[in-house]
Amino acid sequence: MIQTTLFQLDDYGPWTVQPTPRSEMDLQVLQARLYANIAAFVGDREGYAFYTRGDNIIGITNGLDREEHERLQASLRNRYPVTVSFGIGTGETPRTALEAASTALQTAGSAQDETRTGVCRGKTLIEDRMKNGTSDENTVHVAHFDIESATEQFTDRLDAFETYTAIHRWCGSLARHLYRTHDALSFFVGGDNVVSICPAMDEQAYHDVIDHVTESVGIPFRVGVGAGRTAHKAGLAAKYGLERGRERKQPVVITEQPQTVSL
Amino acid sequence: MIQTTLFQLDDYGPWTVQPTPRSEMDLQVLQARLYANIAAFVGDREGYAFYTRGDNIIGITNGLDREEHERLQASLRNRYPVTVSFGIGTGETPRTALEAASTALQTAGSAQDETRTGVCRGKTLIEDRMKNGTSDENTVHVAHFDIESATEQFTDRLDAFETYTAIHRWCGSLARHLYRTHDALSFFVGGDNVVSICPAMDEQAYHDVIDHVTESVGIPFRVGVGAGRTAHKAGLAAKYGLERGRERKQPVVITEQPQTVSL
Amino acid sequence: MIQTTLFQLDDYGPWTVQPTPRSEMDLQVLQARLYANIAAFVGDREGYAFYTRGDNIIGITNGLDREEHERLQASLRNRYPVTVSFGIGTGETPRTALEAASTALQTAGSAQDETRTGVCRGKTLIEDRMKNGTSDENTVHVAHFDIESATEQFTDRLDAFETYTAIHRWCGSLARHLYRTHDALSFFVGGDNVVSICPAMDEQAYHDVIDHVTESVGIPFRVGVGAGRTAHKAGLAAKYGLERGRERKQPVVITEQPQTVSL
Amino acid sequence: MIQTTLFQLDDYGPWTVQPTPRSEMDLQVLQARLYANIAAFVGDREGYAFYTRGDNIIGITNGLDREEHERLQASLRNRYPVTVSFGIGTGETPRTALEAASTALQTAGSAQDETRTGVCRGKTLIEDRMKNGTSDENTVHVAHFDIESATEQFTDRLDAFETYTAIHRWCGSLARHLYRTHDALSFFVGGDNVVSICPAMDEQAYHDVIDHVTESVGIPFRVGVGAGRTAHKAGLAAKYGLERGRERKQPVVITEQPQTVSL
Repeated sequence: MIQTTLFQLDDYGPWTVQPTPRSEMDLQVLQARLYANIAAFVGDREGYAFYTRGDNIIGITNGLDREEHERLQASLRNRYPVTVSFGIGTGETPRTALEAASTALQTAGSAQDETRTGVCRGKTLIEDRMKNGTSDENTVHVAHFDIESATEQFTDRLDAFETYTAIHRWCGSLARHLYRTHDALSFFVGGDNVVSICPAMDEQAYHDVIDHVTESVGIPFRVGVGAGRTAHKAGLAAKYGLERGRERKQPVVITEQPQTVSL
Repeated sequence: MIQTTLFQLDDYGPWTVQPTPRSEMDLQVLQARLYANIAAFVGDREGYAFYTRGDNIIGITNGLDREEHERLQASLRNRYPVTVSFGIGTGETPRTALEAASTALQTAGSAQDETRTGVCRGKTLIEDRMKNGTSDENTVHVAHFDIESATEQFTDRLDAFETYTAIHRWCGSLARHLYRTHDALSFFVGGDNVVSICPAMDEQAYHDVIDHVTESVGIPFRVGVGAGRTAHKAGLAAKYGLERGRERKQPVVITEQPQTVSL
Repeated sequence: MIQTTLFQLDDYGPWTVQPTPRSEMDLQVLQARLYANIAAFVGDREGYAFYTRGDNIIGITNGLDREEHERLQASLRNRYPVTVSFGIGTGETPRTALEAASTALQTAGSAQDETRTGVCRGKTLIEDRMKNGTSDENTVHVAHFDIESATEQFTDRLDAFETYTAIHRWCGSLARHLYRTHDALSFFVGGDNVVSICPAMDEQAYHDVIDHVTESVGIPFRVGVGAGRTAHKAGLAAKYGLERGRERKQPVVITEQPQTVSL
Repeated sequence: MIQTTLFQLDDYGPWTVQPTPRSEMDLQVLQARLYANIAAFVGDREGYAFYTRGDNIIGITNGLDREEHERLQASLRNRYPVTVSFGIGTGETPRTALEAASTALQTAGSAQDETRTGVCRGKTLIEDRMKNGTSDENTVHVAHFDIESATEQFTDRLDAFETYTAIHRWCGSLARHLYRTHDALSFFVGGDNVVSICPAMDEQAYHDVIDHVTESVGIPFRVGVGAGRTAHKAGLAAKYGLERGRERKQPVVITEQPQTVSL
């Protein structure tokens, strides 16, 4: 079981242009700081949060209960000129968990509803288990992808915008394919790196994903895969797998046993 | 003439995995804070900076001279565990300006060159003018795009990931088209907003862009366009145009005279 | 029992002037951000952290175990150009707890020892209890002081520097008195507010403190006192006491029962 | 002539307890971030800003005109849940400049006036000169003090709170003496460092200050003094003086000629 949280700014679009349009860099700084605050809070509890659209941030929050969500929400209310509503959802796959989180929030009101202010809706894994007796098996699987020789092939050779669009195209193709075929949620995390929250998948499935996407966009890439009780633990194991794959020139490395890793 | 700056972290990929892979949320927080610092500094001087790949940030820096670049660089050195190299470039179009900035940096060494540490290369508009007698006409043109009824059509209806990928697909299609046909640089700035740094283009050209992209991805959108001596001034005028277009239901509004606008 | 943590920057003085003196505002920004990061992390776990000297930050960390300290330390290492060593100490009073934390750190090496880098020394409450069978009664007592009519008497009447020095003088006098007579640790937290971490003290003791300090510096002030298992819970109860005292014009209000309070 | 700016949060005290008292660490994080933003903005323009009381921040703003103040103010409005009013003042001495800034703000309304929201009052140096023909000689003098062997004498020997109060006592004594006898404004900047904005003073005057304060608090200390058109330039020269004094064991070093210094 996966738990996700959708962090959605309340009535943000209208705020950015009232009473007159606000400076774009001020908005960018606000969004980056808000994201950094959420990522630090969620990360401190071994969860993950992804910038996504800036006004809609997606979190993998296995390990955060309702009280911790409310603490974060109170803290954001004390720091920012805008409020943030939270939708929490659980599911068998990352996709169904996020659908539940999205629905919980949509039911509470539109993203541009003036009266929806800092609500927290939906169910956490613990609440779900107590009510519905759902499984307490809640391993998170993380796949960490990067491009082979991206620095040599792109960064040091093309102009910065061409590199950017090439990598975004690869990332978009990979994300859509993994979503459709495996209910996975994938996010660009900078450089030439994509982090995917996946269901349990075997090595062949990852080879198939790589083959399919490489065929479509012509960029060879690798993946390290890890599992753990939290996104942080699974993600670190995935990074170890990716490093091992780089050394051994293997495109897919699944770290069977979680590493005993430093933080 | 446009001036761009490419901000590139030095040897960052290796740093993220040495001595062992670092926590993904720590890296995300670092990247978001670094971007916020650069955006605030550049924005204070009426420039723009875009997150792009996190380890490669693109700035539109008309109005910032070399001394200001060096001040920012010293300040980053005092605040972060990693260093940042800068490539500055000028050109007749946004694309050629960024090509010059990218080349200036690539000539100084690879992004993964261990010995390249916080260099600042390339030429500013002022230096260029003094040396080559290039024009001092350096108007920046900004086009601000957003999707019609994005909240109703996407955010309030689909799950947060589907909305995210739909908007990114639109954004990627728009960015690639504008780059190829007009040498423009386009960036997703959150929500359903894309900001493009363009050459001078007339209303018909914008209609053509909208028609082409809508046909390809099926999402209707609008644009406000502005011009000014800095990205900030041009961008604010573009935002006013977009607001006016929303009210009058016009897909393209070019703000002829820069507004006297509050900050 | 109280647990304190001393966060001490390693070899920071020399760093601020090498290779040449660094910009004072860069150092101030660095110190403020580092403090904000530590305060947010510790605060998320219901502890308190005080800026103190900027390069030496004092935390009340009941509730944070060793693993959480190490997580914070790893996170700081990933975000800053300087490292931070931690000394953890426990004691019957705030003073003796901080003495233990200070000694733990001093034993590990000088604050200007070039080879001491990000160490974490000393014992947490849990470790202490497991080893020495010390009491598990670890209530934190917080006293929150503020000046009567500070805005009317000072801020709106004197120049900003006179107000600042008058309040600092009051604060210093209060802090030294509480330390000597009650082993309490007191910190200026902005405005006209002082937060003290105290042992259990009765109402008369607080009246005596107020009388003694008012006599010496001539500034009338109030206090709200609270207790709880964490600094956060005790501190919120203290704030409620202070509000009640303001309404009822009582100089000392001890909140007997912790409030059920929102975050 | 000196220009100072008083940054004062509007109606902040009531906000911290409405509707119920807010978490102390949230308030500390807010204050630290707000200060960091102001210090970064002012520092980028070679000014200085000091934390002071957190809700009242004092800036030395020679070099910042009204438009830049308004830009900062708009930016703060876009980032924080509270607004900040600015009072700008000029004077022959730091003290008289701050008196003018304080009066300008007090005239606009009380710090707890619910209707005073983000005002900017007072006069800048440029406006003053245009109107009153005042001198355009506006050198800033900065004295940077630190304690001899503070690490050995205090940090490595006493507990962290004793060190903190000893240093604050020294700092308070020094600040009050310099204010009364020389109209200087002095601020603790962390560690064992005090930065004073002074009028022009000769070497003997600094020896007298050191003798007077050492006699009173028993702590030997040094000073480096510098001058320049901005606080940043003067402050860097002062730091160089202090370093030279450390090497040569001289308690007072006035850097006659501003160094050509890196940023």
